[in-house]
Amino acid sequence: MREGKIQIIPLGGLGEIGKNSLAVRYGDGIVVIDCGLMFPEEEMLGIDVVIPDVSYLVEHKNLIRAIVLTHGHEDHIGALPYVLPHFQNVPVYGTRLTLGLLEGKLAEHLPDHDVDLRVVRPRDVVEVGHFKIEFIRVSHSIPDAVAVALHTPIGVVLHTGDFKVDHTPVDGEMIDFHRLAQLGEAGVLVLLSDSTNVERPGYTMSERVVGEGFDETFRRARGRVLIATFASNIHRIQQAVLVAQRYGRKVAVAGRSMVNVVDVAHRLGYLHIPPGTLVELEEANQLPRHEVVILTTGSQGEPMSALTRMAMADHKLVDIVPGDTIIISAVPIPGNEKLVARVIDQLFKRGAEVLYETVGGLHVSGHPSQEELKLMLNLTRPKFFIPVHGEYRMLMRHAELARELGVSPENVFVAENGQIVEFTRKSGRFAGRVTAGRVLVDGLGVGDVGNIVLRDRKQLAQDGILIVVLAINQESGQVVAGPDIVSRGFVYVRGAEQLLEEAKEKVHSALEKCAGRGTTEWASIKSQVRDVLGRFLYDRTRRRPMILPIIMEV
Amino acid sequence: MREGKIQIIPLGGLGEIGKNSLAVRYGDGIVVIDCGLMFPEEEMLGIDVVIPDVSYLVEHKNLIRAIVLTHGHEDHIGALPYVLPHFQNVPVYGTRLTLGLLEGKLAEHLPDHDVDLRVVRPRDVVEVGHFKIEFIRVSHSIPDAVAVALHTPIGVVLHTGDFKVDHTPVDGEMIDFHRLAQLGEAGVLVLLSDSTNVERPGYTMSERVVGEGFDETFRRARGRVLIATFASNIHRIQQAVLVAQRYGRKVAVAGRSMVNVVDVAHRLGYLHIPPGTLVELEEANQLPRHEVVILTTGSQGEPMSALTRMAMADHKLVDIVPGDTIIISAVPIPGNEKLVARVIDQLFKRGAEVLYETVGGLHVSGHPSQEELKLMLNLTRPKFFIPVHGEYRMLMRHAELARELGVSPENVFVAENGQIVEFTRKSGRFAGRVTAGRVLVDGLGVGDVGNIVLRDRKQLAQDGILIVVLAINQESGQVVAGPDIVSRGFVYVRGAEQLLEEAKEKVHSALEKCAGRGTTEWASIKSQVRDVLGRFLYDRTRRRPMILPIIMEV
Repeated sequence: MREGKIQIIPLGGLGEIGKNSLAVRYGDGIVVIDCGLMFPEEEMLGIDVVIPDVSYLVEHKNLIRAIVLTHGHEDHIGALPYVLPHFQNVPVYGTRLTLGLLEGKLAEHLPDHDVDLRVVRPRDVVEVGHFKIEFIRVSHSIPDAVAVALHTPIGVVLHTGDFKVDHTPVDGEMIDFHRLAQLGEAGVLVLLSDSTNVERPGYTMSERVVGEGFDETFRRARGRVLIATFASNIHRIQQAVLVAQRYGRKVAVAGRSMVNVVDVAHRLGYLHIPPGTLVELEEANQLPRHEVVILTTGSQGEPMSALTRMAMADHKLVDIVPGDTIIISAVPIPGNEKLVARVIDQLFKRGAEVLYETVGGLHVSGHPSQEELKLMLNLTRPKFFIPVHGEYRMLMRHAELARELGVSPENVFVAENGQIVEFTRKSGRFAGRVTAGRVLVDGLGVGDVGNIVLRDRKQLAQDGILIVVLAINQESGQVVAGPDIVSRGFVYVRGAEQLLEEAKEKVHSALEKCAGRGTTEWASIKSQVRDVLGRFLYDRTRRRPMILPIIMEV
Repeated sequence: MREGKIQIIPLGGLGEIGKNSLAVRYGDGIVVIDCGLMFPEEEMLGIDVVIPDVSYLVEHKNLIRAIVLTHGHEDHIGALPYVLPHFQNVPVYGTRLTLGLLEGKLAEHLPDHDVDLRVVRPRDVVEVGHFKIEFIRVSHSIPDAVAVALHTPIGVVLHTGDFKVDHTPVDGEMIDFHRLAQLGEAGVLVLLSDSTNVERPGYTMSERVVGEGFDETFRRARGRVLIATFASNIHRIQQAVLVAQRYGRKVAVAGRSMVNVVDVAHRLGYLHIPPGTLVELEEANQLPRHEVVILTTGSQGEPMSALTRMAMADHKLVDIVPGDTIIISAVPIPGNEKLVARVIDQLFKRGAEVLYETVGGLHVSGHPSQEELKLMLNLTRPKFFIPVHGEYRMLMRHAELARELGVSPENVFVAENGQIVEFTRKSGRFAGRVTAGRVLVDGLGVGDVGNIVLRDRKQLAQDGILIVVLAINQESGQVVAGPDIVSRGFVYVRGAEQLLEEAKEKVHSALEKCAGRGTTEWASIKSQVRDVLGRFLYDRTRRRPMILPIIMEV
């Protein structure tokens, strides 16, 4: 690619929530911003996580100068353990907490792999090839989040990462209005901005509001308090710790990721826990209930999480009892509504008081509402605008917002993953596509489960399977054993003996018909069996199990 | 059961949203109120609908005096086609529209079954055995909804059905405050009241608000307007028709249930359509776009619905084009959020303007918010209270509300399905349990899919199946063919030849080990194969497919 042009190539996070990743190319250099994962959609049966297809990066791996991380959430760093092995020696830049969280992941997934991690601080500038990469502090629901400004010879590309505008941040670290304003004054060529909350009017509340909500809850609580929230929301955990201390309560931690993150954040100095405040769960169980707070995972109703286990009376150390107050400090991510509702119901059944979504002040979003998005656009005054991080309708609304604020309509680009948006100093255009999409991770398999396997899983899930086995004499072509029918997930076999017996009859007569016609091709025999049986079963049950004829030659 | 006591026996709708059904027993008479269905939970793979377990009613069928319906929604009448065959000659009472909708269902499911349907009007009183059954008009998101008062020798049981308080009903038919007040004045023994919206403070808006929202949208729309809503919300459809007329637009109808309901409602006089307003879709396609409104199903993003087909460019007659305005006049039912979001995204991609949840005034609920629930409690002043229609947390909150308004705490009963609540004039108590629960309907099978089949489907859905077949000589016990391995939904077979080859080796050596030990029991051979293969596959893939060894004897 010749110089004088910038290409923005989104690889994930456009038209979807999650697996955020984006490449910026100038001349012969590429900088990658984030590489996150996504949780599977309902129809992706058996899939653990979804990562971006990074074929484009693999094809151009020699051009990659740096991987830059905006913050430590899974949807921004979670694909790296799967992807990094492709990119030897590419340095990974991020703030201290971001890299601290990444290190934990790498130790687990890639214990033998050496990654060149480079810690940066806000306002640091790193030079790689034609790029100067600048890190700019923003507020978000995890500390140490940054926006990234890529200074190129033809202009600045500013990527907000995930952000919000919090005027009273818990750690006192304000979003860097001044630097954003300077960039805007000097001229931003392209702005890429977070669209997650573009559907919400007004302002997102300060994280501090949640601290006040905790205070009020603790004041009224007579027994234990349990707080379920995202492990990575360290500011929230900090506030819980401070309020606990204020009310003379010890803090215990439940759930693997909560234990991990609290450990990392504490060790790196992002979480300040007064000595003697933190206790083990076993210890907490010895204390009077009104002196205990438990921080736990499970705010999304995840089936294996600590809170869900407690709700189902299946947690080794914590029994929910009447008098417990449980704060669900989160809103369900779309798709998790029913899981969360079920956990809340179970907690109610155990006699706990549960404070959730319908009670205000116990959760705030980490993403910018419309007024904050306007502020970002007006501060940075970009010539070109690409909304990122959002489903298609959100990108459309964010684009509309930018136009309302004066960005030229032809300078606003609603792109899809894989679509190249190319800019000169003067103009922008769509300039073709690269491979992009979803790679499904199932167990140790990365990308080996595709449409065929998923289609089979779907059919199996709906109506089960019916296997027809028979043995045929190699020489005579005679059936020497079977047909036997075995089914799973189709009908309750003990209640369907008659049906399966009749099915066997159908196979028999199908085989006889084949023999009569002189059909000896296995493929046509199988297809005949499949057709006859399929029709019969649908007629009798209105179900369409997978029918799998297996012929053995003896 | 001796007289002087009333038993309330909820069979569905408590601790869940849907399949509402409840029996009221006095002496040797039982009245059943509603018998609805529920849509399956995510983990009920392949299930079409869920209906209440009515074993209790079947066991006592000779005592059943009447089935009484409060309104025509699926979650109140939808189980009847499955259940009615058990109850010959039991009369079914309901208002005209309710029975009109039921008739359609029965014609489809039970064409040869004679059902004794008896039309009632609000304020009608029907005498059956010891009961006087009175019908009382309420507002809801379907016309002709009623509450039911059962007058027994020891007092009145009042069941609100689903209701809301709409002071400006579209059809002018107000909730019967006066009769409710009279009952309250005379004394209600037990109130059962709708808990669906107990988590919402304030008042539910009038249906008329939606008409105003439609008007504003139509005023601005330059092209076609499409409105997706529940087919049964006839007041909303009425408003759409009136607004269409006001703006000189013809109305076409898409989607099977919308066509059906519009037909029934029109025929019975619940929907007034000015002559010449209704056109076929083909006809609408010939008209200028600004003269067309399309009413459609699909407000829940149901995969096979008309709106979803349109969004996916898969509808025979309707292509979405830029300039179309689409109103999603509904909120997603919990669990449907992602389906709805996907449809909205696709509609946006086709260039349509989509007005959905985030735009106010295009949908209102049919259920009462807290202030309306308080009004119902205060009007009827019951001695005893049982919250119904809601998940457990909702029942709990509704119970709390009743206590706050002065119902004695010991007179409030949060019950579960199957739990008998028994009342005398003076006192109430839990009095044991009857069989209750969920019956799963899959195709033509009612209740034949249970935990075993579902567990199999779940495993198949997660990791697929691996079938190992071999043929053994009957006399020698020697393997004469196989082992062959066939898999579905486990791995992409073409990419896993090596793995499956190794798996075959594992089976071979397992069989040899069995032979060496002299194991000839098929069960132990199979279990050995399953163990060895299971470990091997988990180790190599971290997946646990179902492993199904099949041995044929030749």
